[in-house]
Amino acid sequence: MSSLKIYRAKWILPIHGSPIENGEIVIEGERILETRTATSETSNVRDFGEAVLMPGLVNVHTHLDYTVMRGLLEDLPFFTWIRELTLLKTRLEGEDWLASATWGAAEAVAGGVTTIGDCCDSGAAFYGAKALGLSGTIYQEVFGIDGSQSIETILGELKGKVEALRLASAGTRLGIGISPHAPYTVRPALFRALASYADAENLRVCIHAAESPAEGELFYAGTGVIAEMFQRRGIEWEAPVKSVVAYLDSLGILSSRTLLVHGVQVSASDRFLTRERDLSWAHCPKSNAKLGAGVAPLGILQGRQHPIVETEDAYIPKVGLGSDSVASNNCMDLFEEMRFGVLMQRANWRKSDSPGAKEFLEMATLGGARALGLEAEIGTLEPGKLANVCVVRLNELHSAPSFDPYSSLVYASRASDVIFTLIGGEVKFDATLSDNPLERFPGLDLTPTKAALLRAANKLRGIWE
Amino acid sequence: MSSLKIYRAKWILPIHGSPIENGEIVIEGERILETRTATSETSNVRDFGEAVLMPGLVNVHTHLDYTVMRGLLEDLPFFTWIRELTLLKTRLEGEDWLASATWGAAEAVAGGVTTIGDCCDSGAAFYGAKALGLSGTIYQEVFGIDGSQSIETILGELKGKVEALRLASAGTRLGIGISPHAPYTVRPALFRALASYADAENLRVCIHAAESPAEGELFYAGTGVIAEMFQRRGIEWEAPVKSVVAYLDSLGILSSRTLLVHGVQVSASDRFLTRERDLSWAHCPKSNAKLGAGVAPLGILQGRQHPIVETEDAYIPKVGLGSDSVASNNCMDLFEEMRFGVLMQRANWRKSDSPGAKEFLEMATLGGARALGLEAEIGTLEPGKLANVCVVRLNELHSAPSFDPYSSLVYASRASDVIFTLIGGEVKFDATLSDNPLERFPGLDLTPTKAALLRAANKLRGIWE
Repeated sequence: MSSLKIYRAKWILPIHGSPIENGEIVIEGERILETRTATSETSNVRDFGEAVLMPGLVNVHTHLDYTVMRGLLEDLPFFTWIRELTLLKTRLEGEDWLASATWGAAEAVAGGVTTIGDCCDSGAAFYGAKALGLSGTIYQEVFGIDGSQSIETILGELKGKVEALRLASAGTRLGIGISPHAPYTVRPALFRALASYADAENLRVCIHAAESPAEGELFYAGTGVIAEMFQRRGIEWEAPVKSVVAYLDSLGILSSRTLLVHGVQVSASDRFLTRERDLSWAHCPKSNAKLGAGVAPLGILQGRQHPIVETEDAYIPKVGLGSDSVASNNCMDLFEEMRFGVLMQRANWRKSDSPGAKEFLEMATLGGARALGLEAEIGTLEPGKLANVCVVRLNELHSAPSFDPYSSLVYASRASDVIFTLIGGEVKFDATLSDNPLERFPGLDLTPTKAALLRAANKLRGIWE
Repeated sequence: MSSLKIYRAKWILPIHGSPIENGEIVIEGERILETRTATSETSNVRDFGEAVLMPGLVNVHTHLDYTVMRGLLEDLPFFTWIRELTLLKTRLEGEDWLASATWGAAEAVAGGVTTIGDCCDSGAAFYGAKALGLSGTIYQEVFGIDGSQSIETILGELKGKVEALRLASAGTRLGIGISPHAPYTVRPALFRALASYADAENLRVCIHAAESPAEGELFYAGTGVIAEMFQRRGIEWEAPVKSVVAYLDSLGILSSRTLLVHGVQVSASDRFLTRERDLSWAHCPKSNAKLGAGVAPLGILQGRQHPIVETEDAYIPKVGLGSDSVASNNCMDLFEEMRFGVLMQRANWRKSDSPGAKEFLEMATLGGARALGLEAEIGTLEPGKLANVCVVRLNELHSAPSFDPYSSLVYASRASDVIFTLIGGEVKFDATLSDNPLERFPGLDLTPTKAALLRAANKLRGIWE
């Protein structure tokens, strides 16, 4: 029995069932044995007292390697922002990206995130996530809107990267997928080739889709800032005059392994395609707002007629919550993301029966697990699942009083309230280890990472040491 | 020279001028002597290092005494919510309200708030704010929509409360005003009587105005849930068929001393009345969203044609930021409130040139000072003003890198990042004092306050000890 570990708290929030007051979780090795009312057991017990113990948060859309760009480009229109970002990226090298991704992974784990879906161009996100022990999927990004590189060349390079990451992923909790970046940065023939590749290798796929109004305009009218860029670069474009989702479907890239990100400019009919193709969605309320994209009609991403809440049916939506990169957000705080998610829907559709605390807490855990195809392993505290857990203190000034753990977590908690994070039963973050925020990760001192991060930030400022 | 105190930080953000890198503030007694680049001075110096030192935040709309109701009633329509809240209030007594208000005042000060505009029915907010040394205005609430009490009776009782609070306020930094609660809880004749009283005594006035869609419906169409309540209670109502602001103006209650709160259901023409009456507005983006009121058209509150950003003119808007009570919000975090404010405007009007970090930081400091008529004394770090200051650390995982202090504060900081708060030169909060969040307020131990707060929360649950 000595391999058992017991963690106790005022509230255990299993997500798949009701909260347990004065409860405990029993963990054997990397897996959950059970959750129950606190017993008289005293060995291998750690009691967190005035706190909530819950499943680790699932952040289905991150770009860990962009962490160094936090707050670099502010208050710009979406297309200007992404162009500037792409230009500045060229200033950074391997060690910069690695420090940036490691810092981002540490911010994630310190904020209770145990699983991510990350889209990465540089390749660094995998190594950052691995250093912190995160679980999830790393999607290798791929671009190619013009004909400057052949499909074969792009595909060959992508396959090389994917194989290298797969090799490196042995013994980690990370899977490797691909991310054709967006329908305006990947040409139709490339999408088709990527679809064949992904189907043949059973790869998970992630695509930024239906984000900015400019993207919507490009697909419906063939005009706007993106169309103008196409014209300048000599890229042929005929507006498909259909929704971005319908366009992607016509290229064969949509399947039950596909995660679409944003979904602000979706059409009402996209709810049918969402169901038929069994699509997953990453809902990124803060990023969508910050970049001026708007508010995603959540109901459509859930396969419903938004904002009407339909009678329950057998269909289970696969919608997770995503912070997006801190280049747009600017912090990875999934508690705040849940809160903003509730408030954004409610402010926009003025429906008091819009999703509340419980729905968004499910989205940030079980919903995210479903969106990444990991619901058999994570997302709840069910016995047999991986022991991915976070503990949120309720003893701060802003936490009291607490009438209900769902309300406390979604409406009053912050990432800084997380005091303990387990991934696969291993302690990855413990706020009690040190007063220094760089020394709270067992076996990992972030001091050199911070130095490298600040050097990288200086390169973005145009300062080379 | 021994009465001088110097505080140093990576950034001094004076608001009235540009940020000073590696700067310091010199304080003599209760006032600011100067802000400058750090000197070689070493006596009476405290260096906060990787942090921003800025004016204390001004929270122009709080209900400190409702702090015990944090998270009590969730995800309800506005009118159901306020009715339930009113019923539950009757369970609480003096000591409950006092603990609740003191806790709320401590949450404020710990989050960098040094000045408040508080609407209070119970009378406890004044004593809570006084215990923490807050500056600002306490507005004594007054109700009376039906004829059950005569105007004379209501006015007499109100005058008694105001006089008592004025007496008690000697030696504090708190002024006393009145708050006719809302246009649907105060009858026209009472508004007129209150206007005469306020004019005669030169009192500041605060009114909840144009908040929920139901309130808009009542004033334009005379229908909806509030009209139905009026009918049940035998209250006569003929829709004025004008905006809430125009209605209040017709009752003589609007002047340069009036602070209106919410302003979601405003008409485009209300921008003229805002200018003509020199009105102040409290912008409460999170509360408005949470309760399903919607998104306030900020431009109109600023006396502009929203969302068009007009050419600069001589008119200076008096718009401050308000958290509202934690019964609706559910935490008092003005950093998050600024962030949410930017994102809500941008998500709704999809204008990338909507107000950004700098504008909202001004709103939460100087704008709030103007809204409370205190801009000569607070809101910036100008020499001669009261030394109301907060210090925000930038050494957390979510704070790095930092390219610009405005962006760091508005897009990546949290109330929990505040490490030090001065009011009138006195230390009111110092995070380094203790690991226990209840023991970080010089001269004030919050342990008994918390015990009383939890007893009060139990009464709301129906549990009496």
